[in-house]
Amino acid sequence: MLLHLTTWPEVETYLSDSTGIIIPIGSTEQHGPTGLIGTDAICAEAIARGTGEATNALVTPTIKVGMALHHMAFPGSMSLRPSTLINVIKDYITSLARHGFRKFFWINGHGGNIATLKAAFAETYAHLADLNLPNADQVQCQVGNWFMCKSVYKLAKELYGDQEGSHATPSEVAVTQYLYPEAIKQAPLSEDVAKGYPIYGAADFRRHYPDGRMGSNPSLATPEQGKQLYELAVKDLSNSYLEFLNQT
Amino acid sequence: MLLHLTTWPEVETYLSDSTGIIIPIGSTEQHGPTGLIGTDAICAEAIARGTGEATNALVTPTIKVGMALHHMAFPGSMSLRPSTLINVIKDYITSLARHGFRKFFWINGHGGNIATLKAAFAETYAHLADLNLPNADQVQCQVGNWFMCKSVYKLAKELYGDQEGSHATPSEVAVTQYLYPEAIKQAPLSEDVAKGYPIYGAADFRRHYPDGRMGSNPSLATPEQGKQLYELAVKDLSNSYLEFLNQT
Amino acid sequence: MLLHLTTWPEVETYLSDSTGIIIPIGSTEQHGPTGLIGTDAICAEAIARGTGEATNALVTPTIKVGMALHHMAFPGSMSLRPSTLINVIKDYITSLARHGFRKFFWINGHGGNIATLKAAFAETYAHLADLNLPNADQVQCQVGNWFMCKSVYKLAKELYGDQEGSHATPSEVAVTQYLYPEAIKQAPLSEDVAKGYPIYGAADFRRHYPDGRMGSNPSLATPEQGKQLYELAVKDLSNSYLEFLNQT
Amino acid sequence: MLLHLTTWPEVETYLSDSTGIIIPIGSTEQHGPTGLIGTDAICAEAIARGTGEATNALVTPTIKVGMALHHMAFPGSMSLRPSTLINVIKDYITSLARHGFRKFFWINGHGGNIATLKAAFAETYAHLADLNLPNADQVQCQVGNWFMCKSVYKLAKELYGDQEGSHATPSEVAVTQYLYPEAIKQAPLSEDVAKGYPIYGAADFRRHYPDGRMGSNPSLATPEQGKQLYELAVKDLSNSYLEFLNQT
Amino acid sequence: MLLHLTTWPEVETYLSDSTGIIIPIGSTEQHGPTGLIGTDAICAEAIARGTGEATNALVTPTIKVGMALHHMAFPGSMSLRPSTLINVIKDYITSLARHGFRKFFWINGHGGNIATLKAAFAETYAHLADLNLPNADQVQCQVGNWFMCKSVYKLAKELYGDQEGSHATPSEVAVTQYLYPEAIKQAPLSEDVAKGYPIYGAADFRRHYPDGRMGSNPSLATPEQGKQLYELAVKDLSNSYLEFLNQT
Amino acid sequence: MLLHLTTWPEVETYLSDSTGIIIPIGSTEQHGPTGLIGTDAICAEAIARGTGEATNALVTPTIKVGMALHHMAFPGSMSLRPSTLINVIKDYITSLARHGFRKFFWINGHGGNIATLKAAFAETYAHLADLNLPNADQVQCQVGNWFMCKSVYKLAKELYGDQEGSHATPSEVAVTQYLYPEAIKQAPLSEDVAKGYPIYGAADFRRHYPDGRMGSNPSLATPEQGKQLYELAVKDLSNSYLEFLNQT
Ligand code: NI
Ligand code: NI
Ligand code: NI
Ligand code: NI
Ligand code: NI
Ligand code: NI
Repeated sequence: MLLHLTTWPEVETYLSDSTGIIIPIGSTEQHGPTGLIGTDAICAEAIARGTGEATNALVTPTIKVGMALHHMAFPGSMSLRPSTLINVIKDYITSLARHGFRKFFWINGHGGNIATLKAAFAETYAHLADLNLPNADQVQCQVGNWFMCKSVYKLAKELYGDQEGSHATPSEVAVTQYLYPEAIKQAPLSEDVAKGYPIYGAADFRRHYPDGRMGSNPSLATPEQGKQLYELAVKDLSNSYLEFLNQT
Repeated sequence: MLLHLTTWPEVETYLSDSTGIIIPIGSTEQHGPTGLIGTDAICAEAIARGTGEATNALVTPTIKVGMALHHMAFPGSMSLRPSTLINVIKDYITSLARHGFRKFFWINGHGGNIATLKAAFAETYAHLADLNLPNADQVQCQVGNWFMCKSVYKLAKELYGDQEGSHATPSEVAVTQYLYPEAIKQAPLSEDVAKGYPIYGAADFRRHYPDGRMGSNPSLATPEQGKQLYELAVKDLSNSYLEFLNQT
Repeated sequence: MLLHLTTWPEVETYLSDSTGIIIPIGSTEQHGPTGLIGTDAICAEAIARGTGEATNALVTPTIKVGMALHHMAFPGSMSLRPSTLINVIKDYITSLARHGFRKFFWINGHGGNIATLKAAFAETYAHLADLNLPNADQVQCQVGNWFMCKSVYKLAKELYGDQEGSHATPSEVAVTQYLYPEAIKQAPLSEDVAKGYPIYGAADFRRHYPDGRMGSNPSLATPEQGKQLYELAVKDLSNSYLEFLNQT
Repeated sequence: MLLHLTTWPEVETYLSDSTGIIIPIGSTEQHGPTGLIGTDAICAEAIARGTGEATNALVTPTIKVGMALHHMAFPGSMSLRPSTLINVIKDYITSLARHGFRKFFWINGHGGNIATLKAAFAETYAHLADLNLPNADQVQCQVGNWFMCKSVYKLAKELYGDQEGSHATPSEVAVTQYLYPEAIKQAPLSEDVAKGYPIYGAADFRRHYPDGRMGSNPSLATPEQGKQLYELAVKDLSNSYLEFLNQT
Repeated sequence: MLLHLTTWPEVETYLSDSTGIIIPIGSTEQHGPTGLIGTDAICAEAIARGTGEATNALVTPTIKVGMALHHMAFPGSMSLRPSTLINVIKDYITSLARHGFRKFFWINGHGGNIATLKAAFAETYAHLADLNLPNADQVQCQVGNWFMCKSVYKLAKELYGDQEGSHATPSEVAVTQYLYPEAIKQAPLSEDVAKGYPIYGAADFRRHYPDGRMGSNPSLATPEQGKQLYELAVKDLSNSYLEFLNQT
Repeated sequence: MLLHLTTWPEVETYLSDSTGIIIPIGSTEQHGPTGLIGTDAICAEAIARGTGEATNALVTPTIKVGMALHHMAFPGSMSLRPSTLINVIKDYITSLARHGFRKFFWINGHGGNIATLKAAFAETYAHLADLNLPNADQVQCQVGNWFMCKSVYKLAKELYGDQEGSHATPSEVAVTQYLYPEAIKQAPLSEDVAKGYPIYGAADFRRHYPDGRMGSNPSLATPEQGKQLYELAVKDLSNSYLEFLNQT
């Protein structure tokens, strides 16, 4: 159930049954010569919708621009500064907590968001306590990184081995191919792809990863694999969400 | 052309032709007993995509949660604080300006965003000048409010007269019905709808507008009218965008 | 009644009768070759004092430096960033709301302040609700732009027609001439004055409006006209203030 | 010379001769049962104007609301938070430094502003260096507290001895009586006035200083004494300003 | 070599040889009934000094109060908000980067700091690029969590098995016993210790972990084990630091 | 009693007797060719510990990096911006006030911190009142600058006369020699040392104080004098702390 396709009385009814909600968060950043700039947001959004359907959970709109400062040397990349993103996350949770939501399940499509999400949760728990909101201390956030679900990770390794890499991976590209078959891109990909270098600033990143990929071979991706990965992610995250709801 | 469905080399190519880009911004807020919470974001996003297609312009992801603090007494409404939204807008523009974009056309679906957008533009122009970015002084932002397009306004008045109201209007509801026919909602709407009271804080708003509508009768809306309004908006905003690009 | 010329026991007495207060806000920015840099603050302050006298309202000190970043390429212009101005406005309202003031009538002399004022009001209503101040939800802000009062606008059009322009206008210059006849300035004004170009950053503004005027001919101004305009503004805004007080 | 009564070309001319400018800063806060709420701003503004006339220096508008959080338990007091005031001061200096001003002489009427002024100067020097403004390292700020001028202090002690106190003092009240004889207030003042207790939060302040005075007897003030004190302050600060200009 | 025991000319000399520096960061928070509140800072500081000695690296003062908001329901715990800590980290790096330091090795004693450190690094890399500092893009930060060093982790598991737990662990307590034998504390520790519950807000944390321990049995700790763990950490982190310096 | 060497139950016990706490704050900045970069933090920390022992007061960890922006042109200096330091101080006090501490005695080793400390206290008192913390209005902060203790000042003048100067003074250097005899430095010190010039930005400071000293001759310092000065400071500040505790 998408929050955007409901009315406020429907949300009121929903809240009488559940205080859980799913918030997708992605990124808008280069994904190599063939990966879509929206890859992380596209995957998070689709998987969150699937998870919402499977669990009758409400799903908010996706935070599509995340923390991608290290990708900023490639055209089309967009990023919030971590300090901005903390405030966005705080405002999202605070808005929803005022209505009575207490269990926030974040479905994340981008590794670069994880640290800022965690920092923001800590900042927000304290903020809500300051506000003297009733039961503020029951607000809980959990992050579900779809690409780190056990079943997803296992299949990706089976399908792609070392060529999965860590950015612009065939697995995330496959999911976008499944979702947007009309937007499958072709470009020459050198076999000799950089890997293993840590992430610092944007100029440094581009110097070490000149075409944007990190150890990956996205040309291995197919839409069919994307469907498989998508379904595994939805299944895993649905279980995680339900466990999270039941946690006392 | 959606930024999310392009690759970074495609953006690089685009930039050799144009420095213009379209950024949709909406809101996530109550729209009365039958209007979708996503109305403002849905309309802005669809009209921005249409405008992008008509003008070969790149379209970024939509800012779906805007400035809706006055709607916060209704379940499901979400809002950024103006100070947060200013930073989001500043980060969006700064990200894109670094790549060479200079003409930012904001397609807006929510009256409550306008003040903060303008404040953010001023803040950002000064910030970019501080950064010593080349040609920072050529960065320009323009807002196109689809619901204030002349042709849209005229048709809305013809179709709905005074029952257009100013929030949860039949015209915006009609556009969402056209775009999401599967999400058309029914609910009893009292004929006696509040109107004309200014907007202050959230509790005060709900006291004066108890079901969320402001002088509107959204039950007049039909998907067909939505299509008409959508097409007029796309046409008008396409012209505005092209004029904006050509402005020297 | 000027807050600055009262004592705290007098304010206490005032509050037992009224929770209304007038806050003037202007700007410190170039007004063309002959307009005073203080024009917007001078007009707002004088008209606010007149309105306060006519309505027995308390008047706070004037915010004299407002949002004028686009004028910063002309010597003598000063500006707060919008983010700073939001905090100033929030601190003003919060200070006064703690004492029991609830109706804040802002008399504004500068178009460039309007967006930031509105953004700040929204930010502040939410902030006051967070503070759990008693009756925080009764705090209301209204802006009275003296130059947009119907009677003022009408007279300006009669007197100056198209030469009123939109910045460094003869009407605002006339009001300053009435108030400071000793500071009437003379300088050659080319007939060929730029107009119609939108406002972006400071360098761009000066490129398009090289002497600072926007379509105006301030040489038409006389002190007598200034007196007329001043009196119309005071009358209109006094009515607006009293209506605002009576609004329930 | 008041910045508000000049035009931008006049400022341009001024800058070819001098890079010095005077900025008055006061406060809006209770000054006991008979002292004006605007005392600190009124004194700072008048003395700054006098100093500007004596030295041909440009004088900006006065910051009338300063750091007075400890006075907030008395009706009519207004305050910026220190963090807001730092940004205001930073924006003032940055605005003027862009035009070429380098010597900022702050004429201050309120002890509570001093710490925040100093903190703001340090923040601003570093900010200007960050901006790569030409000669940013020549920007200098100096504070002249009129009430701490040697000659003023000496006369106050002669006239009032211990009854000068440290807030709502007869000397500052006398200056306001000289400037606003029409606003001289009368009220019973108990002889037994609190003194010597440090300043912490607002509620604590009022508990210890129930009528707002700190050890002072403002009933000793006369307008004639005010004139003397005013003239001494202007003379002392004029000398200070000129020395500051000449400092290499 | 401790930065605090050097002079500025000595730092100048050091910089002609190396641009590396070690920054210890800990926390000030409850560590169960017997663990020291300073545990995380004490361990980080001592291990950083040892690492500095082993590698001839300069070591800055320790950030002793970190991100420990979830421990705030226990007396004596202190915390920076993540947004504050981001600014502290940014100011530390920026200060040192201005002098020419480029390789920042953070020796961390507290898991709760990791997310905020990463967020701060991203914020700072972008900030330094904005400042146009020469070679700003060569600034690199790496975190060495002493408790996650392979050799440390292995020994802790050997010594304590499952009773190592995840907070107020015997391994960290042992290190403090080695460093401060005079401050070894005794208190009854129930065998039935909570574990496995995620970390949310402070009140929730205390509800689930009533004595502050998370699955640990710190009564197993001895000073001798502490010495072993300390030495392993120094050895591992010295290697990491040298590798980090040599990374191109 | 050092907070870092206590457990949370010990702090709980302490709070049943006292709500006072000592917080040392120093700086990390150049202290001339022979003074230690850690001088101000070293002195504040040691004197705070001594004071804590003499009065049975709890002592928090030291804020070792303070406000030293004006020293940033010398290698090794570190500084927080005042706006960052305000937040650090606010977070320290807020953390401890939540546990019940009410009397905060700051032992300061650096003149450059004083203004920001005062600004931060005002910001924090208001913040705590906003939080509706019980008895928030009883929170009190007092600063004890060890170098301004009467007995210390008197001895320094006796020992060093005019050669005490105002930065990198023999008295503070002597205290560090007493505490760290192994880190006594030698370097040629020209007799002709700059003095009397005010403090502005960092580049300006270094231009006027090329070796970092301000009018001082630290070569006069001996460890024995340091011991004397240390003991006088501890005695004076112990008295101040006890008076502060007893103040009602
Ligand atoms: Ni990705
Ligand atoms: Ni709408
Ligand atoms: Ni104007
Ligand atoms: Ni005063
Ligand atoms: Ni620990
Ligand atoms: Ni020192």
